[in-house]
Amino acid sequence: MQSRNNQPKYYMLMEHLKEEILMGRIMPGEQIPSENTLTETHKLSRHTVRKAISMLVNEGYLYTEHGRGTFCLSRSSKRNDSKNIGVIMTYISEYIFPRVIEGIERVLSNNKYSIILKNTSNILNNEALYFEDLLSKDIEGLIIEPTKSALFSNNLKFYEAFDKHNIPYVFLHGDYRELEGKSKVVLDDVAGMYSVVEYLAKLGHKNIVGIFKADDTQGIDRHRGYAKALTDTGLPYDPDSVIWYHTEEQEIKPFAIIKQMLEEKRNIDAIACYNDEIAFKMFPLLNKLGLKVPDDISITGFDDSFLSENCPVKLTTVSHPKEVLGEEAAKILLQLINDKNYKNNPIQKIIIPKLIIKDSCRKR
Amino acid sequence: MQSRNNQPKYYMLMEHLKEEILMGRIMPGEQIPSENTLTETHKLSRHTVRKAISMLVNEGYLYTEHGRGTFCLSRSSKRNDSKNIGVIMTYISEYIFPRVIEGIERVLSNNKYSIILKNTSNILNNEALYFEDLLSKDIEGLIIEPTKSALFSNNLKFYEAFDKHNIPYVFLHGDYRELEGKSKVVLDDVAGMYSVVEYLAKLGHKNIVGIFKADDTQGIDRHRGYAKALTDTGLPYDPDSVIWYHTEEQEIKPFAIIKQMLEEKRNIDAIACYNDEIAFKMFPLLNKLGLKVPDDISITGFDDSFLSENCPVKLTTVSHPKEVLGEEAAKILLQLINDKNYKNNPIQKIIIPKLIIKDSCRKR
Repeated sequence: MQSRNNQPKYYMLMEHLKEEILMGRIMPGEQIPSENTLTETHKLSRHTVRKAISMLVNEGYLYTEHGRGTFCLSRSSKRNDSKNIGVIMTYISEYIFPRVIEGIERVLSNNKYSIILKNTSNILNNEALYFEDLLSKDIEGLIIEPTKSALFSNNLKFYEAFDKHNIPYVFLHGDYRELEGKSKVVLDDVAGMYSVVEYLAKLGHKNIVGIFKADDTQGIDRHRGYAKALTDTGLPYDPDSVIWYHTEEQEIKPFAIIKQMLEEKRNIDAIACYNDEIAFKMFPLLNKLGLKVPDDISITGFDDSFLSENCPVKLTTVSHPKEVLGEEAAKILLQLINDKNYKNNPIQKIIIPKLIIKDSCRKR
Repeated sequence: MQSRNNQPKYYMLMEHLKEEILMGRIMPGEQIPSENTLTETHKLSRHTVRKAISMLVNEGYLYTEHGRGTFCLSRSSKRNDSKNIGVIMTYISEYIFPRVIEGIERVLSNNKYSIILKNTSNILNNEALYFEDLLSKDIEGLIIEPTKSALFSNNLKFYEAFDKHNIPYVFLHGDYRELEGKSKVVLDDVAGMYSVVEYLAKLGHKNIVGIFKADDTQGIDRHRGYAKALTDTGLPYDPDSVIWYHTEEQEIKPFAIIKQMLEEKRNIDAIACYNDEIAFKMFPLLNKLGLKVPDDISITGFDDSFLSENCPVKLTTVSHPKEVLGEEAAKILLQLINDKNYKNNPIQKIIIPKLIIKDSCRKR
């Protein structure tokens, strides 16, 4: 065992063993390797090994039975009683997220549960830190909006750990292809964007630019709905009419490309935006370029947020149940917590969103 | 001891003893009354008393020393280590609150703390339930926006309990007259509203109606600023020009009274609103009555929220640091947690808000 970051060796061994326990590689009741084995495997002195073990005994991860060895302590009885639920969201203060959290909080409070709230800012490293933290705490379950769910995630291993510890979790908004049979509450993003693009096509739009977020499943699915609606309504799918952006580019890229397209006099008669936020921020640019909505160009959002009401022209958008979605996720989690066989009884709720027609599109 | 709510008698005794411990009336290490005493005082059988005690031993509230008696267990070592902070807010999903919570979360996360979030909806009973819950959990500190801080609160006793258990707390937005020397982060609400009314007076307004929330200290203080600015600028203070409302009336009363005043042709040339939310909701009413802002009437807000930007006319308002306020509260709490002598070293931060002049007022 190397001493990195100037950490003492006993501390490194302690952290290593703690991770083995938290990740479920050493299970409750299981004996840990003997002092001799640890001494040899990690090339440490007996004193160092003993110090690491005694600290883990103090912290309640291990217990020693005289003459028998050292074992991993079961924390499940304590955990089952904690009345704490972890809630990991990508954002907590912006856009539709506060209302989703309010829905979660309402149901859990009414059932005497507390929420431990985490905000990843859609950064994978933050998500990993919060997973570790929640595994070391006593939580009875987890509601999670995954960070960058469309990308490869190194954090999938944590879900295995939750499974091993019998801590149920519910995905909200998005989930992973790799974890398809798990409990979740999501919108049917394909159907939602399909309804928008079908509507635009029926109004006579021929050149519909689509803007999509590339790093979460919602973006991927909304793009699928866009492509499918074009095909079904007989319009061509043109990859050059699709703008993909990642979280880090969201303030700049969608607007820079639209600006370029319009300055190049590309024929655009509608912009179907990933969400209301992108659509809302598109208005100042269109205004600067002298384009009127909906006379010169149509624009649509997604999520029926307060922003859709507060654009210069009220935005045609797609419904999002917000509080109800949060409430549903909480209710499902409570059902899972009360079901000993929850792993075999996943609950999936897929909400079909509705097109909400306001003033930002017109017949061509 | 009566058996009320059909609870078994041992359960009632258990709850009673638990409350004594949580509220700090029985302190760690202190011996609880003997079986004999409990049997006599509460008129219960020995069997019932033993059952209650053994359950509290199981739950980690008490421990028994053979031949010596039963004692209250110290939970402080566990608590000091929990890395959990309770955050009780009146609202979590509306208006400026999500951004305050984001500020709190950012600082606490960076310091490896988790927040346990509670939302009282400004209802005192909810607040009491959450206090009880947090006392029974292991939290290291508490950030609290008090519910109805201007009214008599039956919940003040919980602050004594936190004091007894050496759990520091920081008030946010408002606090209690009765707890004046405690740590807090608040706006100078008197100065904020003073700057608004002074500005209106300088523009030549003579009849300034003020709308204030009656059940929190912010409302009381903003009213004080209003009254002081009128007096200082030589305008009369007229109680009939002041509208007070309680939380439960906020959707109806301020608007009903303004409507009545205007229909009675009362001379009103400005409305100074408690916050941006009230001002924002005043626009549809003024519009229906055929009044133009600012030509016919001036209107002001407070808090510099997104609503102030999204009124039909951009709202003159007062700054509110939101995230920064949350961050400050979290930083102060961390300082208190690390200060053994924190009760004698309260930290109070009073932020002076600034007047932000936009388009909703004009010279008279």
